[in-house]
Amino acid sequence: MFSDKVVENLKASSAIRAMFEEGARLKKEFGAENVFDFSIGNPDPPPPEPALEAVRRLVGGSPRGLHGYMNNAGYLDVREKIASEFNAASPGLGLDAGHVVMTCGAGGGLNVIFKALLNPGDEVIAFSPFFVEYRFYVENHGGRLVTSPTHEESFLPDLGALEGAITGRTKAVILNTPNNPTGVVYPRVFLEELAALLEVKGREFSSTIFLVSDEPYRDIVYDGVEAAPVFSLFRNSLLAYSWSKSLSLPGERIGYVALNPRIEEAGLLWDALVFANRSLGFVNAPALFQRVVLESWGCRVDVEIYKERRDLLYSHLVGLGFSCVKPQGAFYLFPKSPLADTEAFKRLALTHKIILVPGRGFGCPAYFRLAYCVSIETIRNSQPAFEALARDAGL
Amino acid sequence: MFSDKVVENLKASSAIRAMFEEGARLKKEFGAENVFDFSIGNPDPPPPEPALEAVRRLVGGSPRGLHGYMNNAGYLDVREKIASEFNAASPGLGLDAGHVVMTCGAGGGLNVIFKALLNPGDEVIAFSPFFVEYRFYVENHGGRLVTSPTHEESFLPDLGALEGAITGRTKAVILNTPNNPTGVVYPRVFLEELAALLEVKGREFSSTIFLVSDEPYRDIVYDGVEAAPVFSLFRNSLLAYSWSKSLSLPGERIGYVALNPRIEEAGLLWDALVFANRSLGFVNAPALFQRVVLESWGCRVDVEIYKERRDLLYSHLVGLGFSCVKPQGAFYLFPKSPLADTEAFKRLALTHKIILVPGRGFGCPAYFRLAYCVSIETIRNSQPAFEALARDAGL
Repeated sequence: MFSDKVVENLKASSAIRAMFEEGARLKKEFGAENVFDFSIGNPDPPPPEPALEAVRRLVGGSPRGLHGYMNNAGYLDVREKIASEFNAASPGLGLDAGHVVMTCGAGGGLNVIFKALLNPGDEVIAFSPFFVEYRFYVENHGGRLVTSPTHEESFLPDLGALEGAITGRTKAVILNTPNNPTGVVYPRVFLEELAALLEVKGREFSSTIFLVSDEPYRDIVYDGVEAAPVFSLFRNSLLAYSWSKSLSLPGERIGYVALNPRIEEAGLLWDALVFANRSLGFVNAPALFQRVVLESWGCRVDVEIYKERRDLLYSHLVGLGFSCVKPQGAFYLFPKSPLADTEAFKRLALTHKIILVPGRGFGCPAYFRLAYCVSIETIRNSQPAFEALARDAGL
Repeated sequence: MFSDKVVENLKASSAIRAMFEEGARLKKEFGAENVFDFSIGNPDPPPPEPALEAVRRLVGGSPRGLHGYMNNAGYLDVREKIASEFNAASPGLGLDAGHVVMTCGAGGGLNVIFKALLNPGDEVIAFSPFFVEYRFYVENHGGRLVTSPTHEESFLPDLGALEGAITGRTKAVILNTPNNPTGVVYPRVFLEELAALLEVKGREFSSTIFLVSDEPYRDIVYDGVEAAPVFSLFRNSLLAYSWSKSLSLPGERIGYVALNPRIEEAGLLWDALVFANRSLGFVNAPALFQRVVLESWGCRVDVEIYKERRDLLYSHLVGLGFSCVKPQGAFYLFPKSPLADTEAFKRLALTHKIILVPGRGFGCPAYFRLAYCVSIETIRNSQPAFEALARDAGL
């Protein structure tokens, strides 16, 4: 009676949601302070004060037109500001407001990109582990998600495997660095190799293979690491950004898509992106928050907050014997499950009131994800529970 | 290289946008006060003061969590408030928060509905003239839009024609009252006949035919007319609402979808709607404005503002000899083109700096649309231009 595909996905897709709800149930039963919920990427730090001040200032005078329609691509001055940032990072790039579309977060942006790019049966490659929603974003627009593995010791994509996964139907490769769920930041030299491979394979198949860079965590990086600018490395590249994490306002749905000016027919692609934004029913990115990001330009959440949490949780887990790649960005840990059966490990963790997400949904069933964007107290208080869990799991 | 479908639609779909841009060009050349732009439904009246006050109050204290994620369906208290309004309008309906999903406006809501309902090849019927975007909303999710005519003298759907248009593949019929572009409000007795017909045809084909009611203009009604509540009339019904027009904040993308509790497996359909909302990349309706509509509950733009504009423009046009159904809702006029070639009439109007949208995109090429949500001065100042246009067009 309803969409068969959606009903089928409903059953398969709810790992994070299921754990989130299990967490809510446990909190109700045992009190929130006794449950250690690492299930979801909802930032605990409040938005930085300059962003909150921008909201208050903007609505203070209730200026005319503040909440009205604008061009479906978003306000021109906001797009110009974004363009100027890209040009500063990559001199000579020549990116302007006509290469930017304001979107409802990066999730909205990726849907807009795939709607604009994909023809029925086109393949899009993601590296495992990958953000659970990619599969739906691609399938929404008639595409097929193909997965390609990463190296176990680094979570960097296996380029040999990628070479074998690319076919004449490959329309795009999704890049997500800093990565959800591993927290890995891909080094520049790796991206250069990836770019070279895409060039070679594109020539081999006489096709254009787009690099779609999902960058909601671009500004959440530690240890002096930087996420390399993709536009200077990949000619056929598009980028989805969100302020959800960098300004701690994920509920407001504000982000953008930018496209590389070097793409052939970049103007037509921009038209297609704007049309997709409109016809998917987004119409435009929320008006007020477009102005908020402009008015608080350059303001970012203090990443030291997340670094402290990473250090505390990571060192504690490794000290207990968990095997885990040390993340250099985002706010997730992706340790290996000490039990072969990760679902059993998840249930064992629940008995210690630790809520984690098994890796199956991310395409790596031997691992589990912990979102450490929770309070430092939650991490501190979770230590005895993790100790008991490690013991029970035979570490 | 890009989506063939999107590129093809780009060419066909830009009638409103093209006129909007033509208007911008003329305003730049001749000054905004000398151009009479009736192209787009961007409300001229500012949001009502209680809504603006709610925005200021909510952000004043920057309370923790105001801009964070919530349940993908939206805040529980907001959904409960909406449910209570439906139950008050239709006692015994039994609608609760589990029948409501907060969405990015009605456009987002309709995409969520079609994503949740449609299987490949399913047909959705719209009555001509219809809102241009319906075709894309349906095709986005694998459906096919089928059009069925209205009676020329009333713009009420021709039920005989509808009977012939319904097939075993008909999954839904779109209702839009008050109507864009005609402004017609369907009488209750008509809706009862439509409901009876859908029941009969559903039995004939052993299928469920959903009524999808697109109601962004529900609160913009004149002359004591009321839009009848569809949930008491149509068992298998879903409704998309938006505050874009009733609170004059179309740029903020805030609306909801509600489903009739009498639908079989309503719980599963709600799950499907929430999943669609999430996986299409909306994730959730913008957080702050969910709270704004709750905090300013019941507040509406003063419809007398629009009534004055309707009366002035309608009576002037009819006085000049234009043929036009008098609208009882929304803020559009849909007069008949005095020239057989509406595109030629559009160009003639442009020579008088009147921006209108030809009816072709709405499925009725013999008509044109005027959006009168512009200032009363624009309407007053446009009168000599309309007089000259009528003369030139031979009225």
